[in-house]
Amino acid sequence: MSAIRCRLPFLVIFLEGILLVLIALFVTYDEHSDAAAQSNETDHKHNQLYAIFPVFQDVQVMIFVGFGLLMGFLKKYGYGGIAFNFLIAVFSVQWALLVQGWFYHFHHGHIHIGVYNLLTAETACATVMISFGAVLGKTSPVQILILSLLEVPIFTATEWIIMELLKIKDVGGSITIHLFACYFGLSVTTVLYRPGLKGGHKDEGADYNSDKLAMLGTLLLWVFWPSFNSVFASSGHGQHRAVLHTYIGLSSCTLTTFAISSLLDKRGKINIAHIQNAALAGGVAVGSAADMMVTPAGAFTLGCIASVLCTVGFKYLTPFLAKRLKIQDVCGINNLHGIPGFVGAIAGIVTILLAADESYGHGLYDTFPERVPKEGDRKLAELVRLLPQLKPGGGRSAWDQAQYQAAAIGVCLGIAVLGGTVTGFILKLPFLAQPKDEYCFNDDPYFEVPEVEEKEEFEFTNKSNANNNQRLKLPV
Amino acid sequence: MSAIRCRLPFLVIFLEGILLVLIALFVTYDEHSDAAAQSNETDHKHNQLYAIFPVFQDVQVMIFVGFGLLMGFLKKYGYGGIAFNFLIAVFSVQWALLVQGWFYHFHHGHIHIGVYNLLTAETACATVMISFGAVLGKTSPVQILILSLLEVPIFTATEWIIMELLKIKDVGGSITIHLFACYFGLSVTTVLYRPGLKGGHKDEGADYNSDKLAMLGTLLLWVFWPSFNSVFASSGHGQHRAVLHTYIGLSSCTLTTFAISSLLDKRGKINIAHIQNAALAGGVAVGSAADMMVTPAGAFTLGCIASVLCTVGFKYLTPFLAKRLKIQDVCGINNLHGIPGFVGAIAGIVTILLAADESYGHGLYDTFPERVPKEGDRKLAELVRLLPQLKPGGGRSAWDQAQYQAAAIGVCLGIAVLGGTVTGFILKLPFLAQPKDEYCFNDDPYFEVPEVEEKEEFEFTNKSNANNNQRLKLPV
Amino acid sequence: MSAIRCRLPFLVIFLEGILLVLIALFVTYDEHSDAAAQSNETDHKHNQLYAIFPVFQDVQVMIFVGFGLLMGFLKKYGYGGIAFNFLIAVFSVQWALLVQGWFYHFHHGHIHIGVYNLLTAETACATVMISFGAVLGKTSPVQILILSLLEVPIFTATEWIIMELLKIKDVGGSITIHLFACYFGLSVTTVLYRPGLKGGHKDEGADYNSDKLAMLGTLLLWVFWPSFNSVFASSGHGQHRAVLHTYIGLSSCTLTTFAISSLLDKRGKINIAHIQNAALAGGVAVGSAADMMVTPAGAFTLGCIASVLCTVGFKYLTPFLAKRLKIQDVCGINNLHGIPGFVGAIAGIVTILLAADESYGHGLYDTFPERVPKEGDRKLAELVRLLPQLKPGGGRSAWDQAQYQAAAIGVCLGIAVLGGTVTGFILKLPFLAQPKDEYCFNDDPYFEVPEVEEKEEFEFTNKSNANNNQRLKLPV
Repeated sequence: MSAIRCRLPFLVIFLEGILLVLIALFVTYDEHSDAAAQSNETDHKHNQLYAIFPVFQDVQVMIFVGFGLLMGFLKKYGYGGIAFNFLIAVFSVQWALLVQGWFYHFHHGHIHIGVYNLLTAETACATVMISFGAVLGKTSPVQILILSLLEVPIFTATEWIIMELLKIKDVGGSITIHLFACYFGLSVTTVLYRPGLKGGHKDEGADYNSDKLAMLGTLLLWVFWPSFNSVFASSGHGQHRAVLHTYIGLSSCTLTTFAISSLLDKRGKINIAHIQNAALAGGVAVGSAADMMVTPAGAFTLGCIASVLCTVGFKYLTPFLAKRLKIQDVCGINNLHGIPGFVGAIAGIVTILLAADESYGHGLYDTFPERVPKEGDRKLAELVRLLPQLKPGGGRSAWDQAQYQAAAIGVCLGIAVLGGTVTGFILKLPFLAQPKDEYCFNDDPYFEVPEVEEKEEFEFTNKSNANNNQRLKLPV
Repeated sequence: MSAIRCRLPFLVIFLEGILLVLIALFVTYDEHSDAAAQSNETDHKHNQLYAIFPVFQDVQVMIFVGFGLLMGFLKKYGYGGIAFNFLIAVFSVQWALLVQGWFYHFHHGHIHIGVYNLLTAETACATVMISFGAVLGKTSPVQILILSLLEVPIFTATEWIIMELLKIKDVGGSITIHLFACYFGLSVTTVLYRPGLKGGHKDEGADYNSDKLAMLGTLLLWVFWPSFNSVFASSGHGQHRAVLHTYIGLSSCTLTTFAISSLLDKRGKINIAHIQNAALAGGVAVGSAADMMVTPAGAFTLGCIASVLCTVGFKYLTPFLAKRLKIQDVCGINNLHGIPGFVGAIAGIVTILLAADESYGHGLYDTFPERVPKEGDRKLAELVRLLPQLKPGGGRSAWDQAQYQAAAIGVCLGIAVLGGTVTGFILKLPFLAQPKDEYCFNDDPYFEVPEVEEKEEFEFTNKSNANNNQRLKLPV
Repeated sequence: MSAIRCRLPFLVIFLEGILLVLIALFVTYDEHSDAAAQSNETDHKHNQLYAIFPVFQDVQVMIFVGFGLLMGFLKKYGYGGIAFNFLIAVFSVQWALLVQGWFYHFHHGHIHIGVYNLLTAETACATVMISFGAVLGKTSPVQILILSLLEVPIFTATEWIIMELLKIKDVGGSITIHLFACYFGLSVTTVLYRPGLKGGHKDEGADYNSDKLAMLGTLLLWVFWPSFNSVFASSGHGQHRAVLHTYIGLSSCTLTTFAISSLLDKRGKINIAHIQNAALAGGVAVGSAADMMVTPAGAFTLGCIASVLCTVGFKYLTPFLAKRLKIQDVCGINNLHGIPGFVGAIAGIVTILLAADESYGHGLYDTFPERVPKEGDRKLAELVRLLPQLKPGGGRSAWDQAQYQAAAIGVCLGIAVLGGTVTGFILKLPFLAQPKDEYCFNDDPYFEVPEVEEKEEFEFTNKSNANNNQRLKLPV
């Protein structure tokens, strides 16, 4: 594996050099973090930090701990799952700070950053991690760093088109994050198809302890998902509904998963991997409609639908895709992010069309800024008398908004598949140290794994000692 | 186990159908989550969400992660402990949203909900989980779902009587949550007595890794317990004291536990199970008095008392109850919730009687709303001049309040034992798939457990491979 | 080990007795937690609790969960690492409440406490835990309790001198916490040198599962480190920058660690222990300058430098110190806290000297209160016209401030080495039950370890059963 030795360090050092130069050239403080931006009127209690920091920390736990443990479910790839998730997360956040900065926060030649930028950078980061799930254990750290390097700007551009041009509603990212990340990742893994793994791989599975740790990851993601779905909703009732709907969706989804997983097994046994994944599908499915008046029953229903499709997907669709369509989806991201992403995207459109404007009252324009009449429209003048702080919008009807949402799905899928395919071919470049089939799903090529030391130790210790060791170690 | 197959899924689907119908019929948004309830004067920064969300998330971590890992301490029932805790948590929260809604938030035929309702629902949820601890590993998922279905309304009714009629002080739930849940659970397990487990069971124990994960659960519960004890205290100094007292009580309790656990062992060895449980007893013991002027030294003392009783309980009382009284208490909830619950309940009464009104100053009426003079009382008029925002109360003396607290303990125990006994007999109904003794404390009947796959794999791989496998897996 | 039996419980009970007496004699509520301190004007929403509680909880997770899991990395000392960390944490917090109270919050014969005191107590607690890392597994619980008993007051006195007399800037504690704790701990372990461990110890290592749990500890510390570095910065832009710089420093540090760790291994394999530790070095290195205008690129650079030095330190310096200088540093605190502490201390000085006053604008005096002109100085009068709320300071120049920072490093190291050495000799006292070499890094002397029960069980179960047991347990 000297391949790794020469490649990973130099790629990382190279990437860091670039990051440092770009940060030094472009990045400066925003008005909330810049000491010089404070006037003698500034009330420090109202610094933006305090409005977003607690939720930011929740999302941090999801990205670094929740995703990390969930990625560490493989019995012999636990270090890789947890540590490489960590690796691409820190790289993606820094890279996204720059790329998103150029798109959204570039003024007079500088990117102005504060904690809000770290928060948005984590959406890019989450996108990379979801895609990573498709190729977990089949790719070298060099490959996944390149994956991050390419996916972050493609994601940011796509999000910019969808949010700035099409101006759609997607607070939970069902479309911009989950659909994009899933089909980008599936395209990558399709290009990286390994015939040698067609019959499965002896290490492609969990053991009792890795499964419990992965379950812990799921629980952390589950608990903090309402923070993730609400953080980008409009403050007040918008965020309140986003939390409520996400929680209800996740609950009904989790409950359903136990039923379906047991129902799909001939002995009625629950597959813990279904719980680990499908219990989260509800969070994806309520993403787009999270802050709309989807009603509690609506959120409940979305959770149930997402769970059924996700669990059935794990049982039948993933093996089918692997065998027939040569799509080897290690973590089953199509089931957790793809299908529920579609459910969420469609739910958003349906909610826009079915929820009467009356049900929103004055809150309509907080929730749908594009529904506000255009500059100069007579209706705007009337509204402003009622809601003085109202800003002119796009004068869209519900039907207009629904069409833009639909268009966004198409744009998102198109770019994801195209971008993922190109990325996949780049990852095949020989010097990226793609591991041989027999080395897949194993930490050994990348990490010093304790067992090895054990073995050496055995040679030096006398047998009784070894036995003693062994007996004591058995249940460890 | 085809019993499971036909029963669990259909029960879950049936329960979900009912939940969906009831939610669709009854549940709507409250003024904080309803877009239509917003006026042009609404300041979104003051939405109730922001006042409770961070603490709500802390409680979420306790319920789903802390309890889950602690329930997963059995060496072969890790999936069951963690996943079934998850199962009953999501069901109980949704069911409690409805039941508590009918009791507390029912207006014009609708239950109005926001994040506050999710928070109160979690108290019902915690109650179910505590009771679950008594029958952990001895009951099928079907049984524990029925347990939740029955305990949530019985708990809610009891709490309503105690809080709305007797109007007692119990911010940390020493009485309403811990005493109730404990004696409800012990009554259930007494009815479900298994003579076959009299001599113990080979799987009723932890291994090195399950103990470390359970310890992690304890640490999370420990860290967030101050949030749990303070969230229902009056805002300001009341919540501040609740945090302080809970923290001090937990600290002294933890320290004491190390001493007592070592002292009780002939070789002076510490029992990690004592640390996992008794370290939390202090949080239960300061529950009722958490926001009163119990003094830091008082909180410290409560922690010490709770720890001693809890640890001694694990060492001597639990085996005694199992042998003599046929009460098989798997997690020892009587030691962690029952006895410390009594300590907390009595501490509340003692504090009410001993803490002079002067020590509360103006804060007296924030802490004891029932101490405010009755409507029309001359004293009220005088007080209102000082504290304009004061509302009429029950005109209770400290002695009156103490008597109501004592009455609440009786009511709580009576309903808990009666309700638990009835529930126990219902759980014995043959079609609830109660596992045979030999299947207790084992995931195998309910989950696909990796080991099984391992075995199959061995058959297909050549011996050298298997050995290789084995050697590599040893310390895993 | 009856030594433990008689010593640990009695020491703990003795310490608790003293704590209780002192708390009863001295500790009372502060104005935020005292009911009697509330006037009818008090706005409960502005109780100090709400400003610090969320960040306090983040720090709680670091201290109890993050540190605990990281200390549990040894394969046979998992209970000890996690539980003894818990033991000294609860003792140190209570002891620090008193000691810091006497130094900082002592009025009219009473120590006035609120949640803020718990927060500051945790800095003392963190200091003890860092030092504990140097002697992990080589000391009895009796010894580490004595260590805590001695280190807390020495730390508090040192911090008082540095903060109250020298008035330096060190929001993240690079000097007061990390440098002090490291050299105190190294001095202790030097005095406790064990020739018998010169050749290493068969149990001084991790296994696959303990490493994954330690990695989880690292991730939690990583995620919440920005809270730790920002909580003592001035509110508003100061805390905002502290979060931003810490996050950037941690990210660049983590990325670098993957490169260096791989580069230092002949096969290019990553050492997971490097990731567990060096990924955090950036948090230490930005500590002193965290709230200064160090610039994002500056924070990025500090992270890289800290990572390189820390990783190289683990690879070459730690073995060297153990062999040549008889400094056996079990957790390598010199690499994670010592060297990065120096980087942070120097970075603070450099930033003070290089960052122009203009770059701070009006924020200069929030960040450097000592830079405000002295009482009576004409400049002060002018400034007060601009910034009415400004309080007189020390009239220091940047150069003055830099010199005070340098002096603080010296003071800190001097007291740490002296105090640590004395503490070390006290810990050598025979009745403190220091474990024999062969018992090091093993839970067996202190805890009932499941394996033992297993063994007994084997005797009672028939062979087939035992095998069956064994086969099922293998991958556990």
